[in-house]
Amino acid sequence: MSEKPQTLKGFRDFLPKDMAIRNRVKKILTDVFESYGFEPIETPALEYAELLLGKYGPEADKLVYTFEDRGERKVGLRYDLTVPTARVAATHLQDLPTPFKRYQIQRVWRAENPQKGRYREFDQCDIDILGSSSPIADAEILAVIYSALSRLNIGNFQILINSRPMLYGIMEKAGIPENKYNDAAISIDKLDKMSVDEVQNELIEKRGIEREQVGKLFGIVAALESAFPNAEVLVESSEIPAEAPAEAFSSLKEIIKMAVEMGVDPKVLIPRFTLARGLDYYTGVIFETVVTEPKIGSLTGGGRYDNLIATLGGPDTPAVGTTIGLDRICDVISELGLWNDIPTTPAQVLITVFSPDLLDESIKYAKLQRESGVKSEVYIESDAKLEKQLKYADKKGIPWVVIMGPEEKEKGTIKLKNMKAGTEEEMPYHDLAAKLR
Amino acid sequence: MSEKPQTLKGFRDFLPKDMAIRNRVKKILTDVFESYGFEPIETPALEYAELLLGKYGPEADKLVYTFEDRGERKVGLRYDLTVPTARVAATHLQDLPTPFKRYQIQRVWRAENPQKGRYREFDQCDIDILGSSSPIADAEILAVIYSALSRLNIGNFQILINSRPMLYGIMEKAGIPENKYNDAAISIDKLDKMSVDEVQNELIEKRGIEREQVGKLFGIVAALESAFPNAEVLVESSEIPAEAPAEAFSSLKEIIKMAVEMGVDPKVLIPRFTLARGLDYYTGVIFETVVTEPKIGSLTGGGRYDNLIATLGGPDTPAVGTTIGLDRICDVISELGLWNDIPTTPAQVLITVFSPDLLDESIKYAKLQRESGVKSEVYIESDAKLEKQLKYADKKGIPWVVIMGPEEKEKGTIKLKNMKAGTEEEMPYHDLAAKLR
Repeated sequence: MSEKPQTLKGFRDFLPKDMAIRNRVKKILTDVFESYGFEPIETPALEYAELLLGKYGPEADKLVYTFEDRGERKVGLRYDLTVPTARVAATHLQDLPTPFKRYQIQRVWRAENPQKGRYREFDQCDIDILGSSSPIADAEILAVIYSALSRLNIGNFQILINSRPMLYGIMEKAGIPENKYNDAAISIDKLDKMSVDEVQNELIEKRGIEREQVGKLFGIVAALESAFPNAEVLVESSEIPAEAPAEAFSSLKEIIKMAVEMGVDPKVLIPRFTLARGLDYYTGVIFETVVTEPKIGSLTGGGRYDNLIATLGGPDTPAVGTTIGLDRICDVISELGLWNDIPTTPAQVLITVFSPDLLDESIKYAKLQRESGVKSEVYIESDAKLEKQLKYADKKGIPWVVIMGPEEKEKGTIKLKNMKAGTEEEMPYHDLAAKLR
Repeated sequence: MSEKPQTLKGFRDFLPKDMAIRNRVKKILTDVFESYGFEPIETPALEYAELLLGKYGPEADKLVYTFEDRGERKVGLRYDLTVPTARVAATHLQDLPTPFKRYQIQRVWRAENPQKGRYREFDQCDIDILGSSSPIADAEILAVIYSALSRLNIGNFQILINSRPMLYGIMEKAGIPENKYNDAAISIDKLDKMSVDEVQNELIEKRGIEREQVGKLFGIVAALESAFPNAEVLVESSEIPAEAPAEAFSSLKEIIKMAVEMGVDPKVLIPRFTLARGLDYYTGVIFETVVTEPKIGSLTGGGRYDNLIATLGGPDTPAVGTTIGLDRICDVISELGLWNDIPTTPAQVLITVFSPDLLDESIKYAKLQRESGVKSEVYIESDAKLEKQLKYADKKGIPWVVIMGPEEKEKGTIKLKNMKAGTEEEMPYHDLAAKLR
C-alpha cells in the first residue's frame, strides 16, 4: 500500500482530545441513567437481517447495512438500539424483573449520506422502560432527558412533545381519512427540514389529501400551539380546548404534569402538535430535543411503542424510551466551546527521566505515586533531553512535570513544574500526592 | 415473525448481571491504563477490506467479516484493534505527542467456530506505545498487564514471555534454514492446542524440517526452560548459556529486568521459549497471559511490531502493545465465582409507591435522594401491591427499600427495609442519604 489508508466516508477516528469529551458525556449520561435505576445491557452489532428490516419504515430500511455472512446467513448491522432491545425483551422478559428499565450505550450504523451532524457510524445512548403502560414511565423518560441535558450543561435546549393519538386525533378533526394518517405523519415529520408550504404541497400532491383538510389541520395546530406555548401554560390550564381531541389531550397533559413534578422545567417542555417522529413503531407519546445553536437536528428522540415486542414474537409488552445522540451532543459541546477547560489527557503528572543512570529513580517514583492514586507517566526514553520531555508533556496536556536530577536525589527532594503557569517549586520527595490532591 | 428471534451463533446479549461484571472489569482496566498515562482512542467498526486483509496471516484472513457496502466498496469489520491503530498512526502520528501511548476498548469480530472462550464478537482492551523502540516501553506493557490482572484479582495467572529474535535464534542454533523460520513459528505456536509429538510431526511432515533439527530445537528449549523456570532465576543469573542466541537473550533479559523493577512479580513472569504468537506482524518481544483454571486459552497477548505502521504507508514507527481479552477475563471471574458479592444493579434504593394518592410523595422523595447522590428508583406503577414491589426489588437485587405510607407521612418518617437481612427500621425523613453512605 503506497497511499496512506483512509477511513470510510461517514466513519471517524476519535483521538484522545475527542475522547475526553465523549467519555465525559458518557459518564454523565450513565450516572443520570443509573440514578433513576436503569440497568445496562448490550446487544450484538450483527443481527439477522430479517429482524432489522420492516421495523423502521421503507425509507429507513434502505439505510440498514446488510450482507451475507460466511455461513450464507442474511445479516445486518444494527440500525438502532430499540429493535435489538425489543428482541431481547421478546426472549428474556419473563426472566427479568418487570418493568424492565434498561440503558444501552452502543454504536449503530446507517448508510446515510454524511452531512453536518449525520454520520454512518455513531453512538446511541438509549433508555427504555419495558412492561409498563403507566404515564409515570413516560414522564420518567422525560425527567431523565431533562436531568441529563441539564447536567451536561448544553444550554438552550427545548424538549418538544406530542403523541401519535394526539396527531391522529387532530387529523380526524381536520377530516383526513384514517387510512392516510400514517402517510400524512411521514410528510409532517419533515417540517424540520422543509418549509410549511413544501410540506403542505407534499400532503396534497403526494399523499392525496384535500387542500381544505390540510388547511384545517394546520389551523388546529396553530390554535393549539398558540394556546399552549409551553408546558407551564398547559399544566395551569383547566379546560380542554374544543379543537383538541379530548382523550389524547388529557393523556398527554397527565404525562406532562407528572414530568414537571419529577423536575422537568416546564418552560423548556414545549407541546409541538406537528411532531410526528419518522419511525413506524411509535404508538403513544413522542418527544425530541432540539437546540437553537448550532443547527444540528435533534439531540434526542423517542416515544412509546406498545406493539413492537409482540411483533417480534414476544409477550404483549407496552414500552417507552428515548435515544440520546452522543455524537450530536459532543458536536454541540465542541462547537459552542462549552467544555474548553476539561483535562484532555488522563495523566496528572509526567515523571521525567534525567539521565539513563537515574531511570530507576523515575520508575520507582512513578510506582510510588500510582500507589497513592496519582496518574503518573514515566517518560519512555532514558536519554531524551529535558526540553523534549517538557514539550511532550505540553503537547499531551499533562498539567504537572516532575524533575529528579542528582541534586534532588542527594537532598531527597523533587522539582515540580506547573506547565500552565510555567512556575517551578522544589518539595520533599513524599509531598507530591498531597500537593496534587 | 411467529418464532422468537434469535441472536446469531457466537454473538451474545449481555443482561444487567453480565454487565455488572463487564463494566467493573472495564473500569479497573481503564483506571490502570490511565494511571500509566495511556490515552483513549476509538476507531470505526468498518474499514476498507484492503486495510484488514494480509496483515494477520492467511489463516486469520479467512476469519475477517468482509462485504460490499451500498457504494460497492469492499469493507470489513475490524478483526483486532492493532491494525486500525496502526492506520491511525500512519495518518495522524505527526500531529500527536510521541511516543504515543493509547488505549482502546472496543468490539472486534471474527468468523470463528464458536467454542468455550471463543466468540464471533468480543471486546478487546488494547494498550500500545507507538514511536519508541526503548525496552522501557516493552517493560511498561508487561507492568500494565501485571497491574491490571492483580487489581482484577484473577488469581493464578502467569505471563509467558519470549521474543521473535530469541525464537529465530534458537532455530538458527538448531540448524533450521532461515526461510523456514516463519512457517516453523506457526506450527510451534500450536503447542497450547496440540501435543509436543503432534507439533514435531507437523514440523517434519508439513514444514519439511529435518527430524534432527526438530530434535535439537526442542532440546535447546528444554535446556533453557529448565535453567530459567521464571524471571526471578533469569534476572539473578549472570551468564548467557551457550545454547542461547546471545544478543536476543540479552535484550530479552533487559526487558524482563526492567519489568521486575516496575513491579512485575518475577515468579509469575515465565520465559517460554516456544511461545510464537500466531500473527504475522510481530518482530520483537512477545508475551501472553494464561491461567491454570479454567481451561480457556490466553487472557492477554501482544508484543513488539516495528514494521506494521510503515507497511501501511506511515513513517517508520517502532511499536509495542498488548491485547487484554475482556470476555475471557469475565468468563474466568464468573466460572471461579470470584466476584459473587458485587452489586448486580445500579439502584441503591427502591422508593415504593404506597397508593396512587401518595405517588407524588414518592416522586418527591426520590428526587431529593438523587440530589443527595443516592441512586433512587421509584416503582413505576402507582397501584401495585407492596408485596409485588418488594419482589421486584428482590429480583433486581436492589439492597434497600423505602416505604412511605400515610402514617409515616403524618410523622415525617420513612420505613427502610434491608432486603438481604429482612429487617426494617423507621427513621426521620431526611436521614436516608446519611444512613446509606
